[in-house]
Amino acid sequence: MRIAAFGEIMMRLTPPEYLMLEQTKELRLDFTGTGVNILSNLAHFGCQTSLLTNLPDNRLGEAAKARVRQLGIQDHWIGVYGDHIGSYFAEMGFGPRPTQVTYQNRRNSSFGVSGASNYEFDAFLAEVDLVHICGIALSLTEKTREAAFMLAEKAHALGKKVCFDFNFRPSLNEAHGVLFMKEQYEKMLPYCDVVFGSQRDLTDLLGMELAKTLDASKQFEVLVQQFMTDYQIEYFAGTIRQGEGDKHYLTGFLFDSEKQVKAAPREIVRLDRIGAGDGYAAGILLGISEGWSLLEIVEFATANGVLAHTIQGDVPLTTRKQVKHLMEQPTVDLIR
Amino acid sequence: MRIAAFGEIMMRLTPPEYLMLEQTKELRLDFTGTGVNILSNLAHFGCQTSLLTNLPDNRLGEAAKARVRQLGIQDHWIGVYGDHIGSYFAEMGFGPRPTQVTYQNRRNSSFGVSGASNYEFDAFLAEVDLVHICGIALSLTEKTREAAFMLAEKAHALGKKVCFDFNFRPSLNEAHGVLFMKEQYEKMLPYCDVVFGSQRDLTDLLGMELAKTLDASKQFEVLVQQFMTDYQIEYFAGTIRQGEGDKHYLTGFLFDSEKQVKAAPREIVRLDRIGAGDGYAAGILLGISEGWSLLEIVEFATANGVLAHTIQGDVPLTTRKQVKHLMEQPTVDLIR
Amino acid sequence: MRIAAFGEIMMRLTPPEYLMLEQTKELRLDFTGTGVNILSNLAHFGCQTSLLTNLPDNRLGEAAKARVRQLGIQDHWIGVYGDHIGSYFAEMGFGPRPTQVTYQNRRNSSFGVSGASNYEFDAFLAEVDLVHICGIALSLTEKTREAAFMLAEKAHALGKKVCFDFNFRPSLNEAHGVLFMKEQYEKMLPYCDVVFGSQRDLTDLLGMELAKTLDASKQFEVLVQQFMTDYQIEYFAGTIRQGEGDKHYLTGFLFDSEKQVKAAPREIVRLDRIGAGDGYAAGILLGISEGWSLLEIVEFATANGVLAHTIQGDVPLTTRKQVKHLMEQPTVDLIR
Amino acid sequence: MRIAAFGEIMMRLTPPEYLMLEQTKELRLDFTGTGVNILSNLAHFGCQTSLLTNLPDNRLGEAAKARVRQLGIQDHWIGVYGDHIGSYFAEMGFGPRPTQVTYQNRRNSSFGVSGASNYEFDAFLAEVDLVHICGIALSLTEKTREAAFMLAEKAHALGKKVCFDFNFRPSLNEAHGVLFMKEQYEKMLPYCDVVFGSQRDLTDLLGMELAKTLDASKQFEVLVQQFMTDYQIEYFAGTIRQGEGDKHYLTGFLFDSEKQVKAAPREIVRLDRIGAGDGYAAGILLGISEGWSLLEIVEFATANGVLAHTIQGDVPLTTRKQVKHLMEQPTVDLIR
Amino acid sequence: MRIAAFGEIMMRLTPPEYLMLEQTKELRLDFTGTGVNILSNLAHFGCQTSLLTNLPDNRLGEAAKARVRQLGIQDHWIGVYGDHIGSYFAEMGFGPRPTQVTYQNRRNSSFGVSGASNYEFDAFLAEVDLVHICGIALSLTEKTREAAFMLAEKAHALGKKVCFDFNFRPSLNEAHGVLFMKEQYEKMLPYCDVVFGSQRDLTDLLGMELAKTLDASKQFEVLVQQFMTDYQIEYFAGTIRQGEGDKHYLTGFLFDSEKQVKAAPREIVRLDRIGAGDGYAAGILLGISEGWSLLEIVEFATANGVLAHTIQGDVPLTTRKQVKHLMEQPTVDLIR
Amino acid sequence: MRIAAFGEIMMRLTPPEYLMLEQTKELRLDFTGTGVNILSNLAHFGCQTSLLTNLPDNRLGEAAKARVRQLGIQDHWIGVYGDHIGSYFAEMGFGPRPTQVTYQNRRNSSFGVSGASNYEFDAFLAEVDLVHICGIALSLTEKTREAAFMLAEKAHALGKKVCFDFNFRPSLNEAHGVLFMKEQYEKMLPYCDVVFGSQRDLTDLLGMELAKTLDASKQFEVLVQQFMTDYQIEYFAGTIRQGEGDKHYLTGFLFDSEKQVKAAPREIVRLDRIGAGDGYAAGILLGISEGWSLLEIVEFATANGVLAHTIQGDVPLTTRKQVKHLMEQPTVDLIR
Repeated sequence: MRIAAFGEIMMRLTPPEYLMLEQTKELRLDFTGTGVNILSNLAHFGCQTSLLTNLPDNRLGEAAKARVRQLGIQDHWIGVYGDHIGSYFAEMGFGPRPTQVTYQNRRNSSFGVSGASNYEFDAFLAEVDLVHICGIALSLTEKTREAAFMLAEKAHALGKKVCFDFNFRPSLNEAHGVLFMKEQYEKMLPYCDVVFGSQRDLTDLLGMELAKTLDASKQFEVLVQQFMTDYQIEYFAGTIRQGEGDKHYLTGFLFDSEKQVKAAPREIVRLDRIGAGDGYAAGILLGISEGWSLLEIVEFATANGVLAHTIQGDVPLTTRKQVKHLMEQPTVDLIR
Repeated sequence: MRIAAFGEIMMRLTPPEYLMLEQTKELRLDFTGTGVNILSNLAHFGCQTSLLTNLPDNRLGEAAKARVRQLGIQDHWIGVYGDHIGSYFAEMGFGPRPTQVTYQNRRNSSFGVSGASNYEFDAFLAEVDLVHICGIALSLTEKTREAAFMLAEKAHALGKKVCFDFNFRPSLNEAHGVLFMKEQYEKMLPYCDVVFGSQRDLTDLLGMELAKTLDASKQFEVLVQQFMTDYQIEYFAGTIRQGEGDKHYLTGFLFDSEKQVKAAPREIVRLDRIGAGDGYAAGILLGISEGWSLLEIVEFATANGVLAHTIQGDVPLTTRKQVKHLMEQPTVDLIR
Repeated sequence: MRIAAFGEIMMRLTPPEYLMLEQTKELRLDFTGTGVNILSNLAHFGCQTSLLTNLPDNRLGEAAKARVRQLGIQDHWIGVYGDHIGSYFAEMGFGPRPTQVTYQNRRNSSFGVSGASNYEFDAFLAEVDLVHICGIALSLTEKTREAAFMLAEKAHALGKKVCFDFNFRPSLNEAHGVLFMKEQYEKMLPYCDVVFGSQRDLTDLLGMELAKTLDASKQFEVLVQQFMTDYQIEYFAGTIRQGEGDKHYLTGFLFDSEKQVKAAPREIVRLDRIGAGDGYAAGILLGISEGWSLLEIVEFATANGVLAHTIQGDVPLTTRKQVKHLMEQPTVDLIR
Repeated sequence: MRIAAFGEIMMRLTPPEYLMLEQTKELRLDFTGTGVNILSNLAHFGCQTSLLTNLPDNRLGEAAKARVRQLGIQDHWIGVYGDHIGSYFAEMGFGPRPTQVTYQNRRNSSFGVSGASNYEFDAFLAEVDLVHICGIALSLTEKTREAAFMLAEKAHALGKKVCFDFNFRPSLNEAHGVLFMKEQYEKMLPYCDVVFGSQRDLTDLLGMELAKTLDASKQFEVLVQQFMTDYQIEYFAGTIRQGEGDKHYLTGFLFDSEKQVKAAPREIVRLDRIGAGDGYAAGILLGISEGWSLLEIVEFATANGVLAHTIQGDVPLTTRKQVKHLMEQPTVDLIR
Repeated sequence: MRIAAFGEIMMRLTPPEYLMLEQTKELRLDFTGTGVNILSNLAHFGCQTSLLTNLPDNRLGEAAKARVRQLGIQDHWIGVYGDHIGSYFAEMGFGPRPTQVTYQNRRNSSFGVSGASNYEFDAFLAEVDLVHICGIALSLTEKTREAAFMLAEKAHALGKKVCFDFNFRPSLNEAHGVLFMKEQYEKMLPYCDVVFGSQRDLTDLLGMELAKTLDASKQFEVLVQQFMTDYQIEYFAGTIRQGEGDKHYLTGFLFDSEKQVKAAPREIVRLDRIGAGDGYAAGILLGISEGWSLLEIVEFATANGVLAHTIQGDVPLTTRKQVKHLMEQPTVDLIR
Repeated sequence: MRIAAFGEIMMRLTPPEYLMLEQTKELRLDFTGTGVNILSNLAHFGCQTSLLTNLPDNRLGEAAKARVRQLGIQDHWIGVYGDHIGSYFAEMGFGPRPTQVTYQNRRNSSFGVSGASNYEFDAFLAEVDLVHICGIALSLTEKTREAAFMLAEKAHALGKKVCFDFNFRPSLNEAHGVLFMKEQYEKMLPYCDVVFGSQRDLTDLLGMELAKTLDASKQFEVLVQQFMTDYQIEYFAGTIRQGEGDKHYLTGFLFDSEKQVKAAPREIVRLDRIGAGDGYAAGILLGISEGWSLLEIVEFATANGVLAHTIQGDVPLTTRKQVKHLMEQPTVDLIR
């Protein structure tokens, strides 16, 4: 299955060794973004992947493209438009000090100013079996919304699988408010086959009601089934994080039209607090594209999400071999 | 309130990534010292701060001054005298391996050789409401003792608040012995309004007796009340560290003439084992200078001390926003 | 003389060791800008300096302010507005490979979106004797033009010296064209006392004519005199670069209403190809503010400009001692 | 034209800042090799390129492949075989101190142990118009010789262009001696269309005689014409380095069956002493593949070779725009 | 007691800050190997130590020798032979992500190609009281086996103590299989006085039987006694790792002909997952060479093994003072 | 010949990439000193060398010793005394910007506070054939003068060769003045066999008169002959630097009792402006100790001095092979 994504390539600038911005002049430059992350991981799993986006026609755009190629992602659908790459600075947290992300001018990025007319959707879709669209596109600008809708509609019409990720960030939507955003999501969902989200996305954003009389886990099950029926969704997946004392655990869930499964919780030890969600999503898409059982998929994706947290940066770089190792020999922590 | 400090600027040289001195040629250069630390933190809280000290008239002195300004501290009371900056190398510990500090020639530093005549105390005090004096000045050299006494006396006479920090290090006082040091502290304390210290400072150094018939916490309370009465101290504050299994907790206490409060213990996770005490002191001084309740003060100061341990180096750089975040949303460990 | 500047603080991100962006993930972060550069150098010469600008109210803005303080510049006129710091990446050239600057979204920066109403000009001017305005403000946005005109007008009205720097970059003005820019400069110049520029600024931008019948150096002299009379300019200064085989030389010139002087050419050896002009300007302003002879001024400024090229980054950090050393003992290349 | 190369991917490990191996523990890891270098440069010129080689099936092999992709080279003909990547350490020279290369076990590398049966030549050649073979393959091992001959023979038979690079290093051939090597080259040359070499390759290695009665440049011309006739070579190209005092100049030459051209000498300023030859070769191949005039080709290639020396590492990363800039505006050394 | 070792010097290349190979170009270069590790630690304990090995006669060999001297090991028995240093890349694990070691061509190293005739055993042994031989020599190549046997035989004949370390790695012996390896170990053991190993070495490799009717710890005791009797071993030592929840503990054991002791378990906190075994062995050899009681030896060696895990790299650099500190004041984690 | 030196081990702290102290927090730590430099170079030439000095008994002293061993110098005459290592910061110059050295408290170093009673001269001298004493010892402190005199006297009495280096730095002798220093040098010289110095040392420091009627080079010759006769000196050597336009040249001279020679001038290209004199001295001592002709000695020493300037730091690390390469194939600047 040829998997592609539509999304932004962002610059991430990170001080070394948990230093804060005022403590150092050294920064590590990475290129990231939900699409980059998921495709990079799928490429490391051996899939053929391709990213649809725009970058500025300058040295920085070229450097970004080179990194994306290094990650294993094909670059021939990366066009040039605009003159800016959205960026963020990540001051890495330690213990009770949170990781602090500071964005720099995201809306004026090459991706942010590119609308439907800046992409060749038809030619792109001809080479693709499944396309991932990140929900951030619905929040960013009028242009990105327009492009995302057009792409989803076309893909759906051509019988391509559309995978969508809620990724709803209230902080990006202060101007519009939840009601406006609800309409955007409702417009997108009918085109989608695979959806990543959480209970809160369904209740707080879409305004769906919980069947309060049921017990909590049943409430969630009924809610998701309703959601999947409403929008004709094939798969709905997501993760739940739980704390127990000092420890944190990750569990993934996955619904298809008939049943639902949940992975055994795995402890999370984090080198980087950003990015495990994309590792989980990559695992789910791999399993779906290869027709594994729901349980196989969700166990693999959860293990992969846990590994994603042990990698510097938000781009998951795990191989099948590494995920299998964690699943099969979790206590062997030195391989030689 | 205009807050100032009198104290040494030291160089700290730290190998990267927990390496030991013989393992690397790379060092990170920071400028530190109790006065620098407390004022830097107060400046990050929005206070106007100023440091009284001397540095050599060379490139290193200039670099030190530039760093102090970067921290938000005014540099116009930093004079030039002597030809050396006291320095120490910190080999960062890991797990059971202790952090190892190696000092280089502290007594011959510009600060160590500067006596009362090398400072303009009157002009300095005219611009100040509260002045912090670090107890290290009593241990370092004859000159620093002389300067510290003169400054404290003048400040007290002018009705300025004097804040004093016991900071008693037996290793710095091998030549003189405890009795000599006791006399120095007894000479200083009558000028002081706010004092930082521990039970051991009162018993082992000042030779005060515990009322052994009382229970432990009552003993401490009575001891401190006696101390505050003896020397007419307005506030006495300090921290207590407790271990529970693998975990370490920090609790702050604060006495005024009428009552005492204790903060709820907070778990410590340490990136750097040096420097949390100064973060605690900065929190206390902020609260006092703004007239908060004792409990507000001690809770804020304790949270700030805990955050200080999550920062590389001994200089606390926390803002009010960061401390509030920890107090109000301790589980949110990624802010974007 | 209290010297201030109005201008943008930019981020500069530079790969180490002449690497290009696609060759490394490591970047060195500096904060720069014409105002920062000139004031930093004046502060290193012992002047009291202050910068008027706006930064975003976030971690990056705070880090920028800290660096500006470190450079010796007072930060109390740095306000908060907007949410972005303009930035550029500098791939350092080597030999025939040029230094390549790539800008990131300069117009949407905090400075770019701040108009006259976002500054407190009156209070600021009350503390200032001379204010430097960079010509980039005329090119950047409608807002920065408006702010620059208002500030210049007010300063002039209050009898403050206004220093202006042509700094005309055609690449920043593709939208408007030269004619529009000519009008802006003509509007600004009547408020100005000290102007930095080149022959080309007067001919190509302002459209003044050369008296072709004279010899070349006389042509330039007559041109500048005409310009200074037209706009009532007190001082006009600039630099000329000359190549001779492999070698490059810098000469500074300085006109007042009565005479003109030129410095002896000095060879340029460049560690960084960006920033010597600001070092030259700082030297000129120092000399003018202290009433030196024209020749003393121009010799000092030229030596300083040459030293600026030997410093990494565009911020000149030279002291009077260093400039004097170069002027008096140019062959002593090791000081201990 | 689809251009491919057959050759080794090597690791290059370089200490920073001209340090020698015993002075530092820090190394910069790059992947290089004649094929990598030429293809990378062609990819930066916009060509579609592909490398045929083998790497070990381990983490290092994967990292090497990722870097090759980053350089713009397609990786689908990079197979897995053997368990070692040939490597070398480059202690960068400075002034009279030479750059010192130390090889680590080159013959046992994955490339060194791979023979004809370890590659899929037919499938590979089906996707290629021109294939570059590096002469090192004739020196390295029996296996690499066998593979190189088979590939050249097949390519020639299929009417693909074969490009060959003498690259004769006596130090790699101590075991066999020149006579043995002469036979290998004589076996290879009949398959070749484009050849890179020097006068010394023709005389010292192939044993051809100079027509001593002619003047030096005519001698060379006649020699090359004889060589091209003997082996039916379409293009013969190479570079000549000349010193003049402290300065070094590069001139490229290019012969086709009818005429010869020479580029104007360009001064060399070297950041890295390794690798300009591959930049020159990439320029030649670009021009040939696009049908430029001989003079256009050789001027472009020489400028590109000069730029290659200004780049850290041996991989040339220049774009057409950069080469054009040097050719058209050689004095503009700061682009913004 | 003059202690020496026979073994390989390997290069270790480690990316910084837990990065993986494809994430960085920066590597830290160390020289390591069982012999290097044990001798370095003994030298830090104040012993006179010397290493017998071969290195290539090139810049890398010289750099390796310089590092070995820095560690405190005498280098006059390090000869030159071959042209390669075996190397490995260590991608440092974090949490559930294992540390991943990738070897580069170990068998063709200078050590791997050196047989008995490439060493001067007699002269070497004349200066030595105890010689450590690493079991890896039995696995590596025919040459290293031959050299190890000859050295052990000669040492034994001369009445020198021979210390041997099982260090059996199945991955290095895929060609030969266990039976072949069993014969090699059986040939070596009669020459040995001090042996490091585990229960599995005795059962799985040597094929000895457990007395299943006894309880587990008794089984082990009887097994070791049988082994020591069979081969006339003076001391048998090793470590056992135990997990309890998230925590890991290290316990050392030591047998002499009459009794056995076990250290109290110590918690392991690991900065580097490679190398604690060599720290343990160094502790045992120190105690034996100085005639401590079995219990003193095993407690010291276990504490030292725990400290070895807190040091970057596999070379233990602990001093007696540091080990004593951990044993006597385990809660003091900041020394100044 | 067993060569030893008596002198200080200093720390050198250098910012990377020509940055100044206020521009970076990163420093590179080296250990240096005239004795260290000369012995290190001799060790790299294959000589057995040993350093007599004292270091503090702490982690820094241990790290210094380890580095000295790495350089190939034996460490068993390095004792412990005092608590400080003299240090200096070197801001590397570029072009017209001078290298700026800032010393930190040199007189209170372990070496500075060690007098004759802190060394075991007799035992040390028993193992030595030639001992080098640096003139800095005469300037530093009363203690170092005392120790230097005692050592020279004893060595001379035992018939050991004494090598002495004027190394007169007026800046270190502001307290005493030239007359006092003259007496010290006059006291030392009678013990010396090999002396390094310049014409200025003989005239300005010792007050010897030039025979003004002779031509300049003859004046120098007569002066040196007088000096050598007066103090019974066997060899007198030194270097002369000459500038010609932008270029700098180094020439070495060497006198014995009968004749004098001068090396052909060699161009200097400097990576580091500190330390070539010690490289020259090492070359001279090597030649003398091996009985080369005067001309061979001086040519080798000059080439070595030139190479020393191409190495980062002041410690020359050249091998015989490298010096020979420069002498025999100066145009081969890439060795592989």
